[in-house]
Parts: sequence; C-alpha cells; structure tokens
Amino acid sequence: MERTKYRLDDTICPVARTAEIISGKWTLLIIRDLATGVKRFNQLERSLCGISPKTLSERLRSLEEEGIILRRTFAEVPPRVEYSLTEKGQDLVAVIEYMRSYGKKWLC
Amino acid sequence: MERTKYRLDDTICPVARTAEIISGKWTLLIIRDLATGVKRFNQLERSLCGISPKTLSERLRSLEEEGIILRRTFAEVPPRVEYSLTEKGQDLVAVIEYMRSYGKKWLC
Repeated sequence: MERTKYRLDDTICPVARTAEIISGKWTLLIIRDLATGVKRFNQLERSLCGISPKTLSERLRSLEEEGIILRRTFAEVPPRVEYSLTEKGQDLVAVIEYMRSYGKKWLC
Repeated sequence: MERTKYRLDDTICPVARTAEIISGKWTLLIIRDLATGVKRFNQLERSLCGISPKTLSERLRSLEEEGIILRRTFAEVPPRVEYSLTEKGQDLVAVIEYMRSYGKKWLC
C-alpha cells in the first residue's frame, strides 16, 4: 500500500490540482487575455463579452488568491486597477497551450 | 457574441476535453504504467495495487474506446492479452508530464 500511496501522491496530486485550476471557462479566458499583457478591469470586461462584473470580480479575486494574477491599484481619479500574470500564471499559460494543442490534434 | 463563441470553441473545448480525459486517478496511473511499455492485464493489476479487476477492465475498455490504448489478444492457452499506448496515448503522456511539472513546482 505504501507504494500505491507514494505513486498516488506523486502522480495524481500535481496533475489533479493543475487540472482543477484550469477548469472553468472564465478562468481560462482571463488567463489567456492576460497572457498578452497587463489589462484593466474594463478591458477584461469588454474582451470577455458576456461576463458579469460580479463574476469577473470573483474570478479575478480567486486567481489573485491563488497567486496566478497580480492586482495593482493606482491612486488616481478615477482609481486605476491593473491585472497581470505572475510567474506562476505565465507558467500556467504554457500548460494551457500544451493541453490545447493536444485537444486540437486529437479531440476537437 | 460571435467573437465570444469563436473564442470559447477555440480556447475551451480542446483544453476542457483534455482535462476531462486526464481526470480520474486510475486512468492516470494506467497511462503512466503503459508509458514504460506493453503490459498484460495481470501486470497492470499487480502494479496498480488496490484496483479491482472489474474497475481495471472498465478503465481499459474506456481508454481503448477513446483510442488511447491498444488491446491485442493472442490465441494462446491461456489466452494472452496485451495493452499498449497508441500515438494519441503517447502524446497524452507528454501532456500529463507537463501538468505534473507545473503542479510540483507551484501547487503540491
């Protein structure tokens, strides 16, 4: 059983956790949008046509808590808020692109 | 809306379908086992300690239907059945390893 436990921990945890983060259509689209550079809240909202401000706020907060995106506020009038990918977020873009290539080649 | 639809199809479908296939601990472990070469049913059963023959049969059948593994039977006594990865399966190993590296670096 120890062998199984070791293999489960080693094999499944990192893959399952990565899949978990990637699941969710808005999360994917937000990460892809930020992959091209820093964006303001309004820019993301316009780009992700169909997302409600409430949902966008929630997704951004959750990605910030996960350390995938960085939120910077500027003391301007009106206040400016910008979002960008952290290094962890940039690495995730590469994973997503890799999964997308596979999916396009073999599944969709 | 057209723009969103295009982006959803293009961005989400291949990634979501890939994540779907990868989810499920036994599926992952079977693919990893076959990544090292052709295996017989009994070899897989021994290696994946804890799996029931029924579950293993089901997972193997479903992976075969997905075109990820190949089942070859040999008319011997007792009958010999061997499983191996197809090209689609081998490509999936690379995706899994990529997700695993990400997860180990950033999540687990």
